[in-house]
Amino acid sequence: MTGRFSAGAPVPTDDRPNEECGVIGVTSPSEEVGELVFFGLFALQHRGQEAAGIAVSDGVQARLHKADGLVGQVFTPAAMSPLQGMNGIGHTRYSTTGGVGTRNAQPFLVETVHGPLAVAHNGNLVNAGELRTELLTRGFGLTASSDTEVMTLMLASAGGPTWEDRVARTMPAWTGAYSVVLLVENRVIAARDPWGFRPLSVGRLADGGYVVASETCALSTLGCREISEVLPGEIVTIQGDTVRRRQALVPAVTPARCTFEFVYFSRPDSVWDGLSVHGVRQRLGEELAREASVVADVVVPVPDSSIPAAVGYARQSGIPYNDGLIKNRYIGRTFIEPTPVMRKRGVAMKFNALTENLAGKRVVLIDDSLVRGTTAGPLVQLLRDAGATEVHLRITCPPIRHACHFGVDMGHDDDLIAAHLTLDELRDVVKADTLGFLSLEGMMRAVGRDGGYCNACFTGAYPVAAGAPRRKDSFERVLGAVPG
Amino acid sequence: MTGRFSAGAPVPTDDRPNEECGVIGVTSPSEEVGELVFFGLFALQHRGQEAAGIAVSDGVQARLHKADGLVGQVFTPAAMSPLQGMNGIGHTRYSTTGGVGTRNAQPFLVETVHGPLAVAHNGNLVNAGELRTELLTRGFGLTASSDTEVMTLMLASAGGPTWEDRVARTMPAWTGAYSVVLLVENRVIAARDPWGFRPLSVGRLADGGYVVASETCALSTLGCREISEVLPGEIVTIQGDTVRRRQALVPAVTPARCTFEFVYFSRPDSVWDGLSVHGVRQRLGEELAREASVVADVVVPVPDSSIPAAVGYARQSGIPYNDGLIKNRYIGRTFIEPTPVMRKRGVAMKFNALTENLAGKRVVLIDDSLVRGTTAGPLVQLLRDAGATEVHLRITCPPIRHACHFGVDMGHDDDLIAAHLTLDELRDVVKADTLGFLSLEGMMRAVGRDGGYCNACFTGAYPVAAGAPRRKDSFERVLGAVPG
Amino acid sequence: MTGRFSAGAPVPTDDRPNEECGVIGVTSPSEEVGELVFFGLFALQHRGQEAAGIAVSDGVQARLHKADGLVGQVFTPAAMSPLQGMNGIGHTRYSTTGGVGTRNAQPFLVETVHGPLAVAHNGNLVNAGELRTELLTRGFGLTASSDTEVMTLMLASAGGPTWEDRVARTMPAWTGAYSVVLLVENRVIAARDPWGFRPLSVGRLADGGYVVASETCALSTLGCREISEVLPGEIVTIQGDTVRRRQALVPAVTPARCTFEFVYFSRPDSVWDGLSVHGVRQRLGEELAREASVVADVVVPVPDSSIPAAVGYARQSGIPYNDGLIKNRYIGRTFIEPTPVMRKRGVAMKFNALTENLAGKRVVLIDDSLVRGTTAGPLVQLLRDAGATEVHLRITCPPIRHACHFGVDMGHDDDLIAAHLTLDELRDVVKADTLGFLSLEGMMRAVGRDGGYCNACFTGAYPVAAGAPRRKDSFERVLGAVPG
Amino acid sequence: MTGRFSAGAPVPTDDRPNEECGVIGVTSPSEEVGELVFFGLFALQHRGQEAAGIAVSDGVQARLHKADGLVGQVFTPAAMSPLQGMNGIGHTRYSTTGGVGTRNAQPFLVETVHGPLAVAHNGNLVNAGELRTELLTRGFGLTASSDTEVMTLMLASAGGPTWEDRVARTMPAWTGAYSVVLLVENRVIAARDPWGFRPLSVGRLADGGYVVASETCALSTLGCREISEVLPGEIVTIQGDTVRRRQALVPAVTPARCTFEFVYFSRPDSVWDGLSVHGVRQRLGEELAREASVVADVVVPVPDSSIPAAVGYARQSGIPYNDGLIKNRYIGRTFIEPTPVMRKRGVAMKFNALTENLAGKRVVLIDDSLVRGTTAGPLVQLLRDAGATEVHLRITCPPIRHACHFGVDMGHDDDLIAAHLTLDELRDVVKADTLGFLSLEGMMRAVGRDGGYCNACFTGAYPVAAGAPRRKDSFERVLGAVPG
Repeated sequence: MTGRFSAGAPVPTDDRPNEECGVIGVTSPSEEVGELVFFGLFALQHRGQEAAGIAVSDGVQARLHKADGLVGQVFTPAAMSPLQGMNGIGHTRYSTTGGVGTRNAQPFLVETVHGPLAVAHNGNLVNAGELRTELLTRGFGLTASSDTEVMTLMLASAGGPTWEDRVARTMPAWTGAYSVVLLVENRVIAARDPWGFRPLSVGRLADGGYVVASETCALSTLGCREISEVLPGEIVTIQGDTVRRRQALVPAVTPARCTFEFVYFSRPDSVWDGLSVHGVRQRLGEELAREASVVADVVVPVPDSSIPAAVGYARQSGIPYNDGLIKNRYIGRTFIEPTPVMRKRGVAMKFNALTENLAGKRVVLIDDSLVRGTTAGPLVQLLRDAGATEVHLRITCPPIRHACHFGVDMGHDDDLIAAHLTLDELRDVVKADTLGFLSLEGMMRAVGRDGGYCNACFTGAYPVAAGAPRRKDSFERVLGAVPG
Repeated sequence: MTGRFSAGAPVPTDDRPNEECGVIGVTSPSEEVGELVFFGLFALQHRGQEAAGIAVSDGVQARLHKADGLVGQVFTPAAMSPLQGMNGIGHTRYSTTGGVGTRNAQPFLVETVHGPLAVAHNGNLVNAGELRTELLTRGFGLTASSDTEVMTLMLASAGGPTWEDRVARTMPAWTGAYSVVLLVENRVIAARDPWGFRPLSVGRLADGGYVVASETCALSTLGCREISEVLPGEIVTIQGDTVRRRQALVPAVTPARCTFEFVYFSRPDSVWDGLSVHGVRQRLGEELAREASVVADVVVPVPDSSIPAAVGYARQSGIPYNDGLIKNRYIGRTFIEPTPVMRKRGVAMKFNALTENLAGKRVVLIDDSLVRGTTAGPLVQLLRDAGATEVHLRITCPPIRHACHFGVDMGHDDDLIAAHLTLDELRDVVKADTLGFLSLEGMMRAVGRDGGYCNACFTGAYPVAAGAPRRKDSFERVLGAVPG
Repeated sequence: MTGRFSAGAPVPTDDRPNEECGVIGVTSPSEEVGELVFFGLFALQHRGQEAAGIAVSDGVQARLHKADGLVGQVFTPAAMSPLQGMNGIGHTRYSTTGGVGTRNAQPFLVETVHGPLAVAHNGNLVNAGELRTELLTRGFGLTASSDTEVMTLMLASAGGPTWEDRVARTMPAWTGAYSVVLLVENRVIAARDPWGFRPLSVGRLADGGYVVASETCALSTLGCREISEVLPGEIVTIQGDTVRRRQALVPAVTPARCTFEFVYFSRPDSVWDGLSVHGVRQRLGEELAREASVVADVVVPVPDSSIPAAVGYARQSGIPYNDGLIKNRYIGRTFIEPTPVMRKRGVAMKFNALTENLAGKRVVLIDDSLVRGTTAGPLVQLLRDAGATEVHLRITCPPIRHACHFGVDMGHDDDLIAAHLTLDELRDVVKADTLGFLSLEGMMRAVGRDGGYCNACFTGAYPVAAGAPRRKDSFERVLGAVPG
Repeated sequence: MTGRFSAGAPVPTDDRPNEECGVIGVTSPSEEVGELVFFGLFALQHRGQEAAGIAVSDGVQARLHKADGLVGQVFTPAAMSPLQGMNGIGHTRYSTTGGVGTRNAQPFLVETVHGPLAVAHNGNLVNAGELRTELLTRGFGLTASSDTEVMTLMLASAGGPTWEDRVARTMPAWTGAYSVVLLVENRVIAARDPWGFRPLSVGRLADGGYVVASETCALSTLGCREISEVLPGEIVTIQGDTVRRRQALVPAVTPARCTFEFVYFSRPDSVWDGLSVHGVRQRLGEELAREASVVADVVVPVPDSSIPAAVGYARQSGIPYNDGLIKNRYIGRTFIEPTPVMRKRGVAMKFNALTENLAGKRVVLIDDSLVRGTTAGPLVQLLRDAGATEVHLRITCPPIRHACHFGVDMGHDDDLIAAHLTLDELRDVVKADTLGFLSLEGMMRAVGRDGGYCNACFTGAYPVAAGAPRRKDSFERVLGAVPG
C-alpha cells in the first residue's frame, strides 16, 4: 500500500475570542414575523451559541420564548406557534457579563406603564455598574445580572411622550458599546452607540416590511434589499412597511468600529462600513505576505476562518495555496475535554493533517489570531508530524495584549499570551520556525480606512475610559448562577 | 364463574377547587437547607403540582431554581447541587393569577439595594391591580403577571432599616390573603395577613434550625417540634437556630380562616387553629349524618379525600361503612381528555365500582364538595350500574355559590352549579335519589369554632370588599403566556 | 396552640414483593384497538411500573412501541398515532428475569414465516434455561435475556397449520407460570399454563370486540361484560367480535393459583377465581382477628393496601378502626435514598402519624406482608413517637420463608427475614409489643377455597419442581445490561 | 454606503447521494476501548447521521448502546460508562434498507451458542431477500428489517470451530457489498466482500492495540500507524495488540471499488486504494478543466465538498479561484421544510452569495454531482441575482443514470434527473449558460487507475447481477416502522 497517512496530535479547544451576541428585529404588514426572526437568527448563530430568544408582539400583547441552546433546538414548532405577530425581535447569545443560565438569556421582556417592552442587546456598557447601583438605590429589584435588564428598566422609567423619545433621552446615560433592538407594542426600534462599536444594519424585505440585524448576512438570508447601516448615534424605527430614522446623539468625532469583526467575528458574506468581510480578509492575507514574507512551498490555512486570508497570502506571495488541515465538522459544540486516553493515544478530534500536501514541504500556516495561545502549538506539531520540514506561523492581526471593554470576551489581560511574552518567546512557545504578526498599519491598510476603528485590544488605547473590565460574573455577587 | 363484575362509566376530570400554593422556609446553623426545603416541598405537593422552586442563600449569594413540573421532576440532583446554604425557601404552585408558564413560577428572586430578596407567596391580593398600576406608574418594568412580583418590588423599594421593618411598612398596603415567606441574605422572614386566610406555621428542627410552612404536615415530615401558627398580622423571622416574632399588624377583629382548608385542601395529618384536619373531617361526616340522615345499607366514600367523613357518617348513623369505588392511583396528573372511543365504549379511567359492596344495596355516597358538578352524576351512575338500588348523595359542606377572592380557584360565579339551581334541580342533574348538603352551622359545629372563618364561597359575605375576582389571566393583557 | 403533632421517623423504601407484569389484548371490528389497549394498560399499571409496550396489527403489518417508564409517559400522542389497527396487545413490566433496560421490554415482536408475531408474558418458566440453551444450539441468536424471547422464537419455529396449533404444540414444553397474549396478523391469542399460577380473564366490549387481560379491573375499565377466566391450560382466540376457546392442555389435577394475588398484588376491584379481591382482603382481616386477637383501643392500617383487612379486623374484633398513618401520595416512584441529612434530622418522607388517633392508645397495626422486614420497625417506632402505648403488629398472611419460582420477585431465600428468625426474634427486630401472622389455614378460609392455590412461598412446597430460582440477571452472562 | 449586497434565493435541501454507514472496531490490551470507539465514530459521522451505536466486550459479556441521533448526542457520559472492555465495535448509520427507527440501528447484538456476537455493517447484499426468506423458513423470528440481522443470524447458526471459520463459511452466501466488523467475546473480526465495494482499513494504535475502520481518517484521528486496507475477500482478526489476516475468498478478478467514495463520500483526509481523496478531488477538477473548458473570470465551488475540485479546475484552467457562496454551518441537520413564508420572501437558509466576487463576472460553478437535480437550479439563480453575467456549471463526475445496488441511496432510476434528460435539457432545467460533466475516462484518469472500480451508477454495468434495487422499506411489509 502506497498511501501516506498522518497521525493526529491532540489539539485543545478553540483559541478564539468569543463574540457576545447577535440581534435582529423584523416588522411586516403581515403576521409572519416570528418565522422571519427565526430564519434570521440562523444567520446570526455564529455570534452566540449559548442561548436564543424571540419576542413577538401582535399589536397588543408581547410574547417571549428563550432558552439555552442553538436556535434550531430552542425553537421547536411548539415553541414557535404562539409567536405570531407583525413585530418581533430575536437574540443569539454568548455570555459576556451575566454568567450562563436562562436567567440572563435575551430578549428581556417587561410590562411598563407604556405597554410591553422587550430588549435585545449586543455590546457592553462600561458604566453598567454605576447604572445598576442607581437603579437599586431607586428601589428597583433586578432579576438578572446583565446590562440588558439595566437598559430595559432605564427605558421603562424614562420620560418622554414616545418610545423613541425615551430611548433618545436614555442614550446619553449609556457609556460604551451597544447595538440594541427594542420591541414595543406596534413597532421595532433600533439604536447604536455614538462610537459605532458593534455592527447594525437595516434592510427592506422583498414583499414589504423591514429588518434590522447585527450583520448583513442575516438581511441577505431574508432576501432584503436597500441595505444600509444604522449609523452611530442613530435611532431607527421600523413599523409595518415603513422606516423612520433619527440622529439621536452626535456621532463620536472619531468612530470606533471593532476591527476584530473583520479579522474574525463577522461572517465572510457580511458587509460592514461598506466593506465586504471576505474581501478584507483576503487583503489581510495579502498585507501579511508583504510584511512577513518567507521562502516556502505551500500556504496552508487553519480552517475555516483563515481560508480567505491564506488565499490572499498565496496570491500575493506566489507560494501555492493548498489545504493541509481537515476539520471535523461534527465536533462543533460537542465539548470533549481531553481525557487521559486521548493524551496517551494521541487522539486528535478536531483536525487531521493532509500528509500529501505537507510532507517534505516548508509550510506557511495562516491563522487569524493568537489569544491564549493554546491551539497554535499543537497545530504546528501536527504539521511537523505529517512531515512538514519548516512551519512558519503567520497571524492576520497584531498581537492581542489588552482585554476588550466593549463586548468581546478575550479573557483578562492575564490570559492574553502576547501580553507577557516577546515575539521570540511566543515563537518558542508555539514551536514554529518563524512567527509573524500583521502590523496595525498593515491591518488598517487591508481594511482600507485610515481611522475610525477601535484597536484597543492591540494598542491599549481605549476610545472610552473605564475601570478594569468586569469579569463575566461581576454581577453574580448577590444572585448566584444556577444552570438552566 | 360466579364473580360479579361492574362495568365502569365515563367520569370526567376532578370537580374540585384548586388550591394555589404551598410555601416553606428553612434556616439552620449548617449548610443543608436546600435539601430540607426539597424534602419539605414533597409534603406540600398537594397544594400545587404545576411548578416548583427553591431559593437558597449562603449568607452572600442567593441562588434559585424553579421550573414547571412536580417537585421530584424539577429537582434533579444536578439542579440541587448548587442549592447549598443556611437559609432557603421553596414553593409549589398551582396557578391562580398569572397564567401558566415558568415566568410566573416562584420563588421570585431579585437583587435589591439591600441584597438579595426572594419571595414565595400563597394567597391573593384583592388590590393587586391597583398596586401593579402604581408600580408601573413609578417606572418599574414587570416581568411576570403574578401578585408575587408586585409584592417583591414593593418590598425592594420600601423604606426602613431592616427587612422586617420594610415588610411591616408594606403589609398595610396589601389587602387580601397572603401567607408569604421571604429569603434575604442571612435569614428567612414569614408574614401572614391580619385575617389569617391561609395557614402558616413554624416549628423547630430536631437538630437545630427552624421551619415555616403552609401546613404542619411539612413540619412533621421534617421532624419538627414546638410547632405553632404564624399569627394573623405577625412577622416571624427565623435565622440559624433562632426565631423572632413581631406583631406587625393588629389582627382583624374577626379572623377569616378558610374553612375549605378543613373540607378539602389541607392534608389530613395537618393541624390548623389547633385542630386536626382528619378529626374535623370525621366530625363533618358525623354532623352530616345528624342533619341529612337516610335509611340505607352502606356508606361509601368518594376516595381518597372523603374517606374520613364517610367513616364519621357511618359511625354516627350506624350504617356500615364500606369501600364502593376504587381509584386508579396512576392516572394522577395524566390528563386524558375523553375521546370518542372512550365515550362509545364506556371507558372509565379513574374509578371502578366494587359490585359486591353495592349490588342490591341502598348506598349513601359521601363527597366533600360540589363545585362545577361534573363528576357527581357519572359517579352516581357508576354505582347504579353496579347494582345499587338507591343512591343518596351527601356533601360535607354547604352549596358553593360564590367565587373565592382569596386564593382558591373555584372558577367564576357562572361556573358554580349551585349558584344557579335549586336543591331539587341539583339532585335531578346528578340523578341521585336524594341529595343533602351539610349546613353552615353543621360545618362550623364540626370545626368546633363559633366564628373566625371565611365562608364567603358559601354565603357571599366576603370579609374584605373587592371588585369581581380577577380571571387567572387578567394580567396577561400585555405579556402573553408562552408554554415553558 | 393546643394541637398535637407527631414527628416523623425515617422509613426505608417499600418492603413489598414485586409483581412482574400485566398483559392485555384487544380485538375489535373497528380500528381503535391501540387506544383501548392504552386505556387498559392504565388499569394494569400497578403490576409493573418499569416499562410499557403496545403492539398493534392492522391485518398486514404489526407495529410496536415500547420504552422504559409509566404508561402515560411512554405513550405520547406521537407514539400512539401509528398504532392503528383492529388487533393489539400491551404490557406493563416489572423486571423479573432479564434485568432492566429497554432490550427486555415487552411485547417482543418478530417477523416469522407465518407473518408477524408479538408476545407479551406474565409469569416465569422454571425451565427457561434449558429452553434457551436448546434454541442457541439450534443456531438461533438471542437478542434479549427474557423468557419472552424464548417463547416467541419457539412459537416462530413450531409446526402446525395455525398459530393456535403452534401454541398448543409448544405449551407442553413450557414448565412454570405463564399467562401470555400473542398478536398475529389478524387476531389475538391468549394462553394460560395448566396450573393457572397467574390470573388472565376475557370479556366482551360494550360495542363489539373482545379483551383479555391479567386482571378484571382492566376489563371493567374498558366497560366489558360477560367476563370469565381463561382457564388453566386453555387457549382463547379473540378476533373482531368473535371468541374461540380450546382446551389445549389438561389442567393440573391440583391447580396452583397464586394466593399472593389476593394478599397484595391484584387491585381490590378485580375478581379472580370468582372471588372479589377486596372481599377476600376484608376476610383476611376478620380471620386475623379471630386467630390473633389482642386487647387494644384502635385498629390502624398501613395505607393503602392494608385498609380493607384493617376494616375486617376491626369489624370482627369490635375494636374501632381509624386512620393512624397518612401516606404521601406524591413520593410514588421518586426514589429518595436516605441521606445523612434525613437520618440526622429524622425526615420521614412517606408516612406521617395522626397523633390524635394514636396518643395514649393501644394500637393494632395491620400490614399485609413481611418480606425483607425493613419497613415494619420504623413504622412501629413512628406510632410510638406519636404516643401509642402499645403496638401490636398483625400480618394478613403467614411468614414468607421461600423464594417464588413463578414470577414474583421476593428476592432470594437469604433476603427473607422470616426464613431465619423465630417469631419472637422477628417481634424483637420490629420492636412490636406483640406480633401475629395469619395461619395458612386462616388465609385459605378467608379465600374460601380448600386447595388449588400455590402457597410455596409460605410452605416451600412448590407445585412444580425446579432448581434454585434464577437471579433476575441470570441470563445477563453474555449480554450485559445497559441503561435505556 | 458603498457595499454591495446580494439577496439570497430559496435553495432546497441537499441534492446528494446518501452514504449508508461507517463502521469501526478497536481492540487493545487495556480497558479503554469504548472511549476509543467513541472518538473514532466522530471521524465517521459524515457517513451516517441518523443513528449511532457501540458494543463493547470485556472478555465475557458484551454490552450495547445505540440510539437515533448524532454520536455526541447518543453517547452521553452515562451511556458511555458501562461500555468498558478490551474489544469494541461501533457504527454510524444512514438508513439504506430497513427504514428509520432504533429497531434497525446497529450494531446488532445477539447471544449465540458460541457466546456474544455483535455485527456492524456497511454495504448492501443484493440477495438479502432470499437469505431472509431462508432464515424465516428455518423457523427464525426476525426482529428488524436490515441486512445486518440476516448476516448476524447466519453467522450464529453457521458451522465451524472458530468465528473466523464461521465467517469464512458464510461469506460465499453473501452476494453484494459488505465491509463488516464483528465483535465476539475476546476479539474483533473484520471482513470485506471479494469485490471490495466499500472501504475498510486497519491500523495499529500508538500505544498498543488495533483499529479497523471504514476510512483512514478515523485511524488518523486515533493516532494509528501502519495503516493498510482490509483486502477484498479478506478476514482480519484483531485481538489485544495482535492482528491476523486470512484470505477467505478469492478476490474478484475485477475489483469494484466505489468511485463515488472519491467523488463525494469519503472525507478528504482519507486514503483509499493508496490514493489521497483530497488529491483525487483536485485532479477531478483538473481533468474537468481539460475536458470542459470555458472562457470565464472566476471559478467558484459549491462549498464544502467541491472546494478541492474547484482549486484543481482553477489551477489547470488559469482562471482565478475565489469563494462565491457562503454556507451556513449551523443549518446542518436542522430540517427546515420550505414554508410559504420562505417562498414568498425569498428566504435562503443555506447559502448566501458573495456579490463582490460574482457581480459582472463570468462564473464557473463547480459541483460534485447532479442526482435529483433539485439544488443546482436555485444555486445558479443565486449567482445570477448576485450579478454573475454567465454561469457555467461543471460537474466532477459523469451523469448519474442508474440506481446503486451496493449501499448508496441515490433513489430509484425514476428519481435520477440525468436518466431522463439530454444534456441540453438538463442545462435548461438548471438554467446554466453551459453545463459540463466530467467523462468516465476523465474521472478514472483523475483517480489514476485503469479499472477495478464500480461505475454502475454512471454506466449501468453492474459488477454483480441483481434484480431491481430494493426500496428502503422493502422489508417493512410485516413489521411496520414506528418512530423512535
